[in-house]
Amino acid sequence: MSAVLPAFDLRAWSQAALSQVESAMALWLAEGAVPQLESLNAPIRYSVLDGGKRLRPLLALAARAAVAAHDGKAAPADFDTAALRAGCAVELIHAYSLVHDDMPCMDNDVLRRGKPTVHVKFGEAGALLAGDALQALAFEWLTPADDSIPAATQAVLCARLARAAGRNGMAGGQAIDLASVGVALDESALRHMHSLKTGALLQASVAMGAACGAAPARALAALESFGAALGLAFQVVDDILDVTADSATLGKTAGKDAAADKPTYVSLLGLDGARARARQLHAAAISALADSGLGDTAALAALAGLVMNRDH
Amino acid sequence: MSAVLPAFDLRAWSQAALSQVESAMALWLAEGAVPQLESLNAPIRYSVLDGGKRLRPLLALAARAAVAAHDGKAAPADFDTAALRAGCAVELIHAYSLVHDDMPCMDNDVLRRGKPTVHVKFGEAGALLAGDALQALAFEWLTPADDSIPAATQAVLCARLARAAGRNGMAGGQAIDLASVGVALDESALRHMHSLKTGALLQASVAMGAACGAAPARALAALESFGAALGLAFQVVDDILDVTADSATLGKTAGKDAAADKPTYVSLLGLDGARARARQLHAAAISALADSGLGDTAALAALAGLVMNRDH
Repeated sequence: MSAVLPAFDLRAWSQAALSQVESAMALWLAEGAVPQLESLNAPIRYSVLDGGKRLRPLLALAARAAVAAHDGKAAPADFDTAALRAGCAVELIHAYSLVHDDMPCMDNDVLRRGKPTVHVKFGEAGALLAGDALQALAFEWLTPADDSIPAATQAVLCARLARAAGRNGMAGGQAIDLASVGVALDESALRHMHSLKTGALLQASVAMGAACGAAPARALAALESFGAALGLAFQVVDDILDVTADSATLGKTAGKDAAADKPTYVSLLGLDGARARARQLHAAAISALADSGLGDTAALAALAGLVMNRDH
Repeated sequence: MSAVLPAFDLRAWSQAALSQVESAMALWLAEGAVPQLESLNAPIRYSVLDGGKRLRPLLALAARAAVAAHDGKAAPADFDTAALRAGCAVELIHAYSLVHDDMPCMDNDVLRRGKPTVHVKFGEAGALLAGDALQALAFEWLTPADDSIPAATQAVLCARLARAAGRNGMAGGQAIDLASVGVALDESALRHMHSLKTGALLQASVAMGAACGAAPARALAALESFGAALGLAFQVVDDILDVTADSATLGKTAGKDAAADKPTYVSLLGLDGARARARQLHAAAISALADSGLGDTAALAALAGLVMNRDH
């Protein structure tokens, strides 16, 4: 990998970025929380402030850093508030999707990131409402009353997030997933499902981070390609981990896709085939960064490496 | 009422408005619908295109008409696309809330507008996903790629809808409602719950319609007061109908609040007391319109009358 990636201290960059992400999310969650609504805010905090990987906010900040570098602004560690809001808003959508996905009528899972799932801890109605409120909250975070995001950018971010989350994005992918249990999908159908279910939000993270800066159309198109390849690689690695890792490492129930007779990249391509596909997608992502013409894509490249090499 | 309301043909106005609302919603739902996602789009259509009263879109269009008249533009029947999108977006949020509310873990209701509820017809997972997708779709409709809504207005509309739908709006009200079964609320607590649960979206409908035009701050503040009073009046009438109407007229299960031991305006104030409170709120709404200084508030006033005199 060292031949591809420039020298970049991902650990230091991530630490600085994560510190801002965690502080911002805790602050923004606390800001609008009134005591009468603790029954709603408790499951919201539980599902959001739980030590997730924060890949989506990191991608938004890395994309902003790439674009910021391009337009001559800001050191990589100086993430602006717009990109922070964009990344954290995507994270809220991700968090709500996990809460609803885990419910008995969906995956009926009791373990998430090593803790009881939200409906186990707060009841099904509590989980349903917390998820619903989280989706709205994402759009609240994108439309602050202060001037931290210009109105035109707010509109672009809301447009992109709504489409990534909705019927032709994440929710659509989940609907296809639901309808695919026990069905033989070919790779094209599997790719379409995952490009919606997981890929749309990851791709949107990159695009929304970039939308907080200024970049030429060619760079934005390349970042879209990067996000699409990364999103798919993420899912292929997910499918690999589902059969190779244990529940303790994953922080969720391992082997559940196979148990549920769901089509996966591993069931379709075999373990070696899935690993080859992941490497191919990673190469496509890195190649898209080179095509972008942006100078400072090191954080994005490093995050792509992280997606490949993660163990959970 | 004729001493208060100017001569206004609500029936003709509503027919023109409803025709635009129904056409727009059917068109916009069809526009983004792909065959692979029919399992998601079928429950979405079922829940949205079902003959609801469309009070929220009507309020948005009436508010726009009031403001349009103020700034010298457009005949009342010539609703502009921004207000149509705003009203229909609120209607999607309303539709999703009904789908999720009816689910077994919430109100567990099997009848809605005289038809089986969405989870009865499409399964619980289908209802959950359709509701989730509807919420995102509301924000898609507010952020069209064409130039029918200026970007700054898109941002204002998204901001307002997100707050009306979220944890300090509708979802928050539902959480308080859930926590209030069997609890003795005083009128202040009941009012707070309903101002969030039902009132926030109705108030937002008026405010969002007005935001699609231009009006002085005083007029906007008066329209907020109108929306707040109307929203509360709506709920008081709902509570009255819950004990005075039958299920066939309501199109949903009558008497269910009393059966669920939920606090209502009728349980708190008695039937006559609730009727007096509704009249009082209606008078406050009409008075706010007079305070607005806007010339053409006839449609808003007529809709307030409709809220008072409805039988379902």
